[in-house]
Amino acid sequence: MTDLYPFSTSIRVRFNETDAQGHVNFAQYLNYFDVAVTEYLRAIGFSYQQMLAENLDMLYVDSHASYIAPSHFEDSLRIHCRVGKIGNSSARFDFQIFNETTNCLTANGEITIVMADRKTFQKMRVPDHLRQALEDKQQ
Amino acid sequence: MTDLYPFSTSIRVRFNETDAQGHVNFAQYLNYFDVAVTEYLRAIGFSYQQMLAENLDMLYVDSHASYIAPSHFEDSLRIHCRVGKIGNSSARFDFQIFNETTNCLTANGEITIVMADRKTFQKMRVPDHLRQALEDKQQ
Amino acid sequence: MTDLYPFSTSIRVRFNETDAQGHVNFAQYLNYFDVAVTEYLRAIGFSYQQMLAENLDMLYVDSHASYIAPSHFEDSLRIHCRVGKIGNSSARFDFQIFNETTNCLTANGEITIVMADRKTFQKMRVPDHLRQALEDKQQ
Amino acid sequence: MTDLYPFSTSIRVRFNETDAQGHVNFAQYLNYFDVAVTEYLRAIGFSYQQMLAENLDMLYVDSHASYIAPSHFEDSLRIHCRVGKIGNSSARFDFQIFNETTNCLTANGEITIVMADRKTFQKMRVPDHLRQALEDKQQ
Repeated sequence: MTDLYPFSTSIRVRFNETDAQGHVNFAQYLNYFDVAVTEYLRAIGFSYQQMLAENLDMLYVDSHASYIAPSHFEDSLRIHCRVGKIGNSSARFDFQIFNETTNCLTANGEITIVMADRKTFQKMRVPDHLRQALEDKQQ
Repeated sequence: MTDLYPFSTSIRVRFNETDAQGHVNFAQYLNYFDVAVTEYLRAIGFSYQQMLAENLDMLYVDSHASYIAPSHFEDSLRIHCRVGKIGNSSARFDFQIFNETTNCLTANGEITIVMADRKTFQKMRVPDHLRQALEDKQQ
Repeated sequence: MTDLYPFSTSIRVRFNETDAQGHVNFAQYLNYFDVAVTEYLRAIGFSYQQMLAENLDMLYVDSHASYIAPSHFEDSLRIHCRVGKIGNSSARFDFQIFNETTNCLTANGEITIVMADRKTFQKMRVPDHLRQALEDKQQ
Repeated sequence: MTDLYPFSTSIRVRFNETDAQGHVNFAQYLNYFDVAVTEYLRAIGFSYQQMLAENLDMLYVDSHASYIAPSHFEDSLRIHCRVGKIGNSSARFDFQIFNETTNCLTANGEITIVMADRKTFQKMRVPDHLRQALEDKQQ
């Protein structure tokens, strides 16, 4: 199922990311998704520095996460990421987090972003070269 | 719109909850939702201590958040919370976060929980007295 | 011992502030200290908005925390704060966190800040009216 | 100066670790220190799993951090770690965090831990094989 995901990155669960139930706190998964977005964009040559240099920023407008199996301290997680949809000024990233320590899918989800002017935070069209780079990566 | 929400609690945005975009980090809103769940359950006499004493715990299985307008350091946020649905072993909490400093809706969302045995994390039926207390509060 | 502390504020431990050892994560106490600094400054009429309006910002240059007894989810913590020392461009805040649920001192510590230009982050002298307000509060 | 540090690990700054001042939040450095402790102990064959299996846990009793130069989103940080002192039941870890993106020392500090029974949290002597492994690594 994850072969439709053209990109992945891995992290190891830190102690401060767990909570008193003994596993990773539910809100933390959004940060893991976010790490994957960052690494994905850097991998296609569109780092955050680059984005700011083009007077662009990304606003997060929607997030969804399903928690499938718990992950624990020191578990190695692989975060798969793809672009599910690109609109005029928005894009949806899809995620699957696979726990390589337990061999289980631990969570999946989506984040929708809107491209914005980095100073005014007004909506901007996703620039063509980013659009192209995202589509190229997807194939 | 928020009069359908029988409960609310308020928090003030802390500096560590913001990020380099200058406003509250998107993942942080899930923690705000979680604060409301905690306070709501305490308000109906079902604190976490009480839950554990009944050998119960809650697992978070799904979350969704829409980010409507940014909130900033020191803003006062009112988190409205209601029970949207109670199933056999699950419940869905709905949230609206109103920014009392800017008079704007800042975010809304939902969390779905599953009631579980606190030791085995096996699904359990939502106990009748909790179900009743949640329904009473809703009216 | 805490009567030497002219200011205090209280918070309730949130679930995401705990870790897999079942109590509040050690790094979190710095955020609690920080909440007290914010509330203290607001209480003497020098909110962060006010500071920025005067082209000032505070840089944190040193922190120390001693962890005395663990605190847990839903515990009510009272954070006592005082100014231990004011230098030319720096100030040291001292903290004691008393757990009102367990009646134990849970942590104490210090944070040293340097007053800086909000744009260049260059050191600035602590302005006289802030210096005066801090000293007045201390008596 | 860092050649006295027998171990290091690296991380990349995540967006949620920054705050509205535009750089890494001061409390976050304690989590970075903690990552280094975890990786250090794993490197000498004493992972957290192993520790728990020996009925041991570590309690953090003291932390100190000096913030020398700010770090920013996506900076690559190398966290150097050494054991500064081993007592009967305690140990002090020393840290230096070098920012490999800016070529600056960003922070340094110390964490003191106490070895404890994993269930009762009573103080325990640092076991000889861990003591030996820590001393071996240091040479």
